[in-house]
Amino acid sequence: MSRFLSSRLKGLEPYVPGEQPKIDNLIKLNTNESPFPPSENAIRMSAEAAKNLQLYPDPECSRLTETLAQKLGVAKDEILLTNGSDEILNFAFMAFCDSERGAVFADITYGFYKVFAQLNGVPYREIALDENLKINLDDYKGTDETIFIANPNAPTGLYYEPEEIEKVIASNPDRVVVVDEAYIDFGGRSCVPLIKKYDNLLVTQTFSKSRSMAGARLGFGVGCKGLIADLNTIKYSTNPYNINSATMAAGIGSLTDEEYTVRNCNIICQNREYTTQQLIRMGFDTTDSKTNFIFAKHKTIDGGTIYRKLRERGIVVRHFLKDRISDYNRITVGTKEQMDSLLCALEDIIKEETL
Amino acid sequence: MSRFLSSRLKGLEPYVPGEQPKIDNLIKLNTNESPFPPSENAIRMSAEAAKNLQLYPDPECSRLTETLAQKLGVAKDEILLTNGSDEILNFAFMAFCDSERGAVFADITYGFYKVFAQLNGVPYREIALDENLKINLDDYKGTDETIFIANPNAPTGLYYEPEEIEKVIASNPDRVVVVDEAYIDFGGRSCVPLIKKYDNLLVTQTFSKSRSMAGARLGFGVGCKGLIADLNTIKYSTNPYNINSATMAAGIGSLTDEEYTVRNCNIICQNREYTTQQLIRMGFDTTDSKTNFIFAKHKTIDGGTIYRKLRERGIVVRHFLKDRISDYNRITVGTKEQMDSLLCALEDIIKEETL
Repeated sequence: MSRFLSSRLKGLEPYVPGEQPKIDNLIKLNTNESPFPPSENAIRMSAEAAKNLQLYPDPECSRLTETLAQKLGVAKDEILLTNGSDEILNFAFMAFCDSERGAVFADITYGFYKVFAQLNGVPYREIALDENLKINLDDYKGTDETIFIANPNAPTGLYYEPEEIEKVIASNPDRVVVVDEAYIDFGGRSCVPLIKKYDNLLVTQTFSKSRSMAGARLGFGVGCKGLIADLNTIKYSTNPYNINSATMAAGIGSLTDEEYTVRNCNIICQNREYTTQQLIRMGFDTTDSKTNFIFAKHKTIDGGTIYRKLRERGIVVRHFLKDRISDYNRITVGTKEQMDSLLCALEDIIKEETL
Repeated sequence: MSRFLSSRLKGLEPYVPGEQPKIDNLIKLNTNESPFPPSENAIRMSAEAAKNLQLYPDPECSRLTETLAQKLGVAKDEILLTNGSDEILNFAFMAFCDSERGAVFADITYGFYKVFAQLNGVPYREIALDENLKINLDDYKGTDETIFIANPNAPTGLYYEPEEIEKVIASNPDRVVVVDEAYIDFGGRSCVPLIKKYDNLLVTQTFSKSRSMAGARLGFGVGCKGLIADLNTIKYSTNPYNINSATMAAGIGSLTDEEYTVRNCNIICQNREYTTQQLIRMGFDTTDSKTNFIFAKHKTIDGGTIYRKLRERGIVVRHFLKDRISDYNRITVGTKEQMDSLLCALEDIIKEETL
């Protein structure tokens, strides 16, 4: 830290991203990346765009926004594309929270909500998950705070139907409810249609997971025109030229190849069910995940041991040193082959530990 | 605006980027883009990276940072790469300014400084350029504010030698001085070597102009380890996965092809001198630009008229509706061909106006 840092930021605890180890032949199941490359269309259009990088990107992202709006069945001015969904989440904290209007979210959820609250000087309240690690939606009804709900939640993978989330939105008409749907494409139904009914709903999604574009940094928010206009004010006050040209082109490419995305999501869901069954057979408890990861703890072996022993075998998963979930590991669902390697390594570890 | 926007942001006036007109055969001289495509290496490496967009980028940007550090003769931890230089400038406002520690910059300079100050609730003071549109550096010495100096300045193009800027840095040891060198590669000398001597100096640069990568969004800051650590804290609290993979690859590609960048900059400088001489011959006053643009006003025809009449002829330049400079137009230096088309159109306009 330098002697110049504003005292406002001295207590800030930055987000710690899952590690990106530079080890050969690693099976990387720690950051919920897709095991599949992006659509051929995305790759080709990104490469094409690279030839004209001397020009600024279209600040309005017109073509990508139109393509996405059509797919989602909303208007162009009900969408804002951002530099990953992290950016739209940060914008929501900036726009819809302040020192008088705090934020509320689960105690076990996407770790970035807390960081954004701290960064923006927003008071926040964390609500404990229930004994089954579920968000108790009743806790969020009628609060006087801006609400952030990850649906499905991470790292638990647990999901609510839009009809349940709607009750929270309806109960908080004077506060924005942000529904973070980073993992919605793996078996959930989106709240996007509800933006037509509620002016206080912002739904965020990402191209990182189901569309295999984590490296491109592309996310978006969907909400009524007024909310999107507010978020655009912030965009034009920070990075007007987001999204960069290559990412924008890749996004358009991905959206013109829906079949590929749907097929990949189906494979991931199949592999998730297969792996979950095997894990249960091997003595694991798992949550009912509707995401591209599995949250699992073994009945007798602690989470830290499993994490370390998998790593020794060239398999990286994510382990959170946090109360109530330190017995779990979050395992990204990869290809069938990767899952078989994982299961094989776990069999081996269980044998070793129960000798 | 929605009824949910924080009152803190209600007065915010976003930055207005130069327009990106979607007109065929336009000669676009309004946003200081390079007329040359990026290096073949940048194009090839970006396209290659697109094939693996399913993986998150390296949050530390290790390879790009190392390559850039080597080129600049600084250490890896004296650099932070960001999503355009706008991002590092915003980070500097966040880190080194607050309600007690205001910012100071010229009244005619890069328009984003004011937006960042407003966005972050930072009190700011604008110092008038002198009668020759120069920054009077004496005005900045010993102020108790965080200083932002664009060198060369935009839209005037005027430049100071590092030895002159150094006096400002030395006179403000307890406040950070940010030297924004977006245009330094077109004939100026950088202040980067001074970071070894002053812990209060942050130099920012961009790949947008001299490296033909405006569409990629890549900028960086150079400063002592402590300053860079502070800025990293903010990066990891906003967008840990910046820079995206394709841009990172393009950046590395560009840095491995210095000859191409140097050659392009030389051509731009030659075209600038050629065009300036012709403009003077035609009755224009110009500033002594050390950038890839020319700031010019005609002795008898007003700036707005020239802007409009050029546009009618398919040539777009940038005209600022601002006191003291509304007689000028900022003209990006393009290829010799583009400059000849511009000069030809101006001859025509002058004839029309002086009939």
